[in-house]
Amino acid sequence: MKTPKPISDLIQNFERLPGIGPKTAQRLVFYMLRFPQEELDKFGQNIAELKTKTKICSVCKNIDQEDPCCICSDSSRDIDLIAVVTTPLDLYALERAGFKGLYHVLHGVIDPLNNIGPEEIYLKELLSRIDDISPTADAPLELLMATNTGMEGESTAIYISRAIREKGYSNDIIKITRIARGLPVGGDVEYADDLTLHRALEGRSNFDL
Amino acid sequence: MKTPKPISDLIQNFERLPGIGPKTAQRLVFYMLRFPQEELDKFGQNIAELKTKTKICSVCKNIDQEDPCCICSDSSRDIDLIAVVTTPLDLYALERAGFKGLYHVLHGVIDPLNNIGPEEIYLKELLSRIDDISPTADAPLELLMATNTGMEGESTAIYISRAIREKGYSNDIIKITRIARGLPVGGDVEYADDLTLHRALEGRSNFDL
Repeated sequence: MKTPKPISDLIQNFERLPGIGPKTAQRLVFYMLRFPQEELDKFGQNIAELKTKTKICSVCKNIDQEDPCCICSDSSRDIDLIAVVTTPLDLYALERAGFKGLYHVLHGVIDPLNNIGPEEIYLKELLSRIDDISPTADAPLELLMATNTGMEGESTAIYISRAIREKGYSNDIIKITRIARGLPVGGDVEYADDLTLHRALEGRSNFDL
Repeated sequence: MKTPKPISDLIQNFERLPGIGPKTAQRLVFYMLRFPQEELDKFGQNIAELKTKTKICSVCKNIDQEDPCCICSDSSRDIDLIAVVTTPLDLYALERAGFKGLYHVLHGVIDPLNNIGPEEIYLKELLSRIDDISPTADAPLELLMATNTGMEGESTAIYISRAIREKGYSNDIIKITRIARGLPVGGDVEYADDLTLHRALEGRSNFDL
């Protein structure tokens, strides 16, 4: 008895997703056999329409139904502050944290070990966007590097900073900042790793009450 | 910024699957944004066709593209032996283990705590299938209870055995058997739980070399 083709085909589709192995894929598909047909139709349609009904914002590369996206077209946002993030999920996280500036979504990090160079992410687009804005000392721009704090995120942030300085934008025209690295809220000093604690010491701030 | 509707709809679809929470669903959907459109089309189509292109075998309730399924229509199988299993996945497991009889797939277990009674599984169909076969003392039938060895599987096996005896089929007409419960191959006696070891002692067999 071989698994019927409609079932094995769908198992293969699920296996392509991250964190889903052959056993899990099999379990999911057999579970779906209990779904009513309308739900399967809707599920299938949503997958087929995932990319056709969404757009990549031509300004910030965020994913939305409109272009420019609802953030770029929101006049109440702080247009002097652009957060550079890796994925749209990072953008949502910053939104939940109350960030009020604009974004630039790179859709990846520079990761030479996985053959991802600066050309594979939306970096060229960030640089030409900055040229379009053409900030000056009177109307400076803050570029907040909000990439992950792991090795690839750090080196991507460094690479971008250098590329901007090489284009001749000095610190009083474009101020480049980095999200703080330190102990997470609720974290214990005792259990913090050395590097995190080192960053937390470096980034110490005034505590005047 | 709210998640665009085509994305949040698909996240909801994924959340309905077992073992997939909101965070995982979100990660899967954003990962799928990188898939080429043809792959999304095919994935969606496979989901919509999962049930329309498969059938439940009218004899054994296995899922296949044909009815009767390829096992029920295979004349080389041992028709005097029917394994009662809970799901098609259990059937595949027995096939891999070299089982050569027929099957009956219950599609569930009796589980009163989750409101699943004997009517919710293919039990009535098993009993009428046995009546159709009408085994006799000259042409007896072996019914192998291959349900899981947990509480629900055990009690489902007991319930079915009783139902068959109540219909008047004696042991020399229908022999009811149960898969052996004991130590898994490679298992340590030291670490076996008490109940498993108890079953292994009860089910001890001759060991003449």
